[in-house]
Amino acid sequence: MAKWVFLNDAFVEEEKASLHFRDLSFQRGYGIFDFFRLIGNAPLFLEDHLDRFFSSAEKMHLEPPVDRADFKTIISQLIQKNDLPGTGIRLSLTGGYSEDGFTLARPNLVISQHYFTLPTKEQLQTGIKLISHPYQRQLSQIKTIDYLMAIWLQPLRIKHNADDILYHQNGVVSECPRSNFFLVTTDEKIITPLDDVLKGITRKKLLDMAGRHYPVEQRAVTMDDVKAAREAFITSTTKQILPVRQIDQVQFGKHDIADHLQQLFTAFIKAQ
Amino acid sequence: MAKWVFLNDAFVEEEKASLHFRDLSFQRGYGIFDFFRLIGNAPLFLEDHLDRFFSSAEKMHLEPPVDRADFKTIISQLIQKNDLPGTGIRLSLTGGYSEDGFTLARPNLVISQHYFTLPTKEQLQTGIKLISHPYQRQLSQIKTIDYLMAIWLQPLRIKHNADDILYHQNGVVSECPRSNFFLVTTDEKIITPLDDVLKGITRKKLLDMAGRHYPVEQRAVTMDDVKAAREAFITSTTKQILPVRQIDQVQFGKHDIADHLQQLFTAFIKAQ
Repeated sequence: MAKWVFLNDAFVEEEKASLHFRDLSFQRGYGIFDFFRLIGNAPLFLEDHLDRFFSSAEKMHLEPPVDRADFKTIISQLIQKNDLPGTGIRLSLTGGYSEDGFTLARPNLVISQHYFTLPTKEQLQTGIKLISHPYQRQLSQIKTIDYLMAIWLQPLRIKHNADDILYHQNGVVSECPRSNFFLVTTDEKIITPLDDVLKGITRKKLLDMAGRHYPVEQRAVTMDDVKAAREAFITSTTKQILPVRQIDQVQFGKHDIADHLQQLFTAFIKAQ
Repeated sequence: MAKWVFLNDAFVEEEKASLHFRDLSFQRGYGIFDFFRLIGNAPLFLEDHLDRFFSSAEKMHLEPPVDRADFKTIISQLIQKNDLPGTGIRLSLTGGYSEDGFTLARPNLVISQHYFTLPTKEQLQTGIKLISHPYQRQLSQIKTIDYLMAIWLQPLRIKHNADDILYHQNGVVSECPRSNFFLVTTDEKIITPLDDVLKGITRKKLLDMAGRHYPVEQRAVTMDDVKAAREAFITSTTKQILPVRQIDQVQFGKHDIADHLQQLFTAFIKAQ
């Protein structure tokens, strides 16, 4: 645990960082967040994460209590006070303390620091296993706190001895609960779903970077594309570029292009 | 506000009833609840609400920290301590304080007392206006805290000067965000959606009661059924039986069968 958390207008000790039960996150699951890594004590892709956080807030009718410049100051102070290099920072904004338990109130802001683990060497070498599940996230382009289905499906994931879940609907693939999904076609093109997904920051950086080495296409990706693919991988802030070895009964023998992208991405991060 | 709230294992003053930000309701919108009315200081349909609460908990992989007998004792003590006749009681259970912000932990339980308003005389006399919106609730048969879409749609509801929203998908009607939906056909049959809805306690009581006076059918209800209907109404713990005067461009001139059911329901409650 970190020592300090920023709550609305002040730094408080983490064990005291509580919200009243009238908050609409507790009452109605209503809130947004964003999460970025620290490289050492330096935020990675901070501007992109702030862009998305403010965009999520606006789309969800939530007004952050401090402006963008203040966010940067508070984040910088939090990093200094906690001094936990290599961890992550979460920006959270809720529907606030609602008197009737339904109507939006003044949002509550929490800026907290979290440990996280990067993929293991074994996961990077062998790739992970996904199981598919028919589902489409609601308000999918906004980074809300809605992970009801993701958590609800964990017993199924464990039963199938899988590492993560791949959502699809009517034969069209969207994303994993906390990652974007990519395929490499047999002609070495990189494809990823365009619509109805959360546009990850790692996804965005990867598309820019990969486009200099491979043909890249954002389009509808189907379960048939999955079956015909050369490779599959997922991306996220904490997973970076992580190869997939299996989706349901489909096995992928190769992951050398995913490995190449992972090397490029690691070098890209080092150059920030 | 009530004076006392039950939090996990003790009564605490309401202003001190807080949950740490690591709770999975705040982090991931993961939790369930139920809500029942007090008639005077007597819980209405308590056994039905406890049945549904324990069913929701089990389906969501959440184990309540106290058993059913203890729930009844705690509820009874809370009612005595607060002495707020005619209010409502909410039972809430969350995913708990999760160290990694994703894995289910020991659930947090909150039992809280709330003021609420019944429909106004004007609403009962003239009926309310609904607007339809294409949406299907996820895990719809479980009373989760997921009201993301419901709250997100409030500006649209207000813009259309409507009182509530009616969800439908592919031409099939399901429910309102916090109420069940009913039609009365021109041959005075009462119909209500069977699948993909939360089975309300008022819905259940109404179906039993109405079945003694009218033909009643639980089945797929379409937007075409809406257009052809004689009457429409919604039901919930706080709305009881509330006539609908308009859905989008469709107007309903009558609500005498809804009124009759409302009278029967009021008498039924008095007889409890």
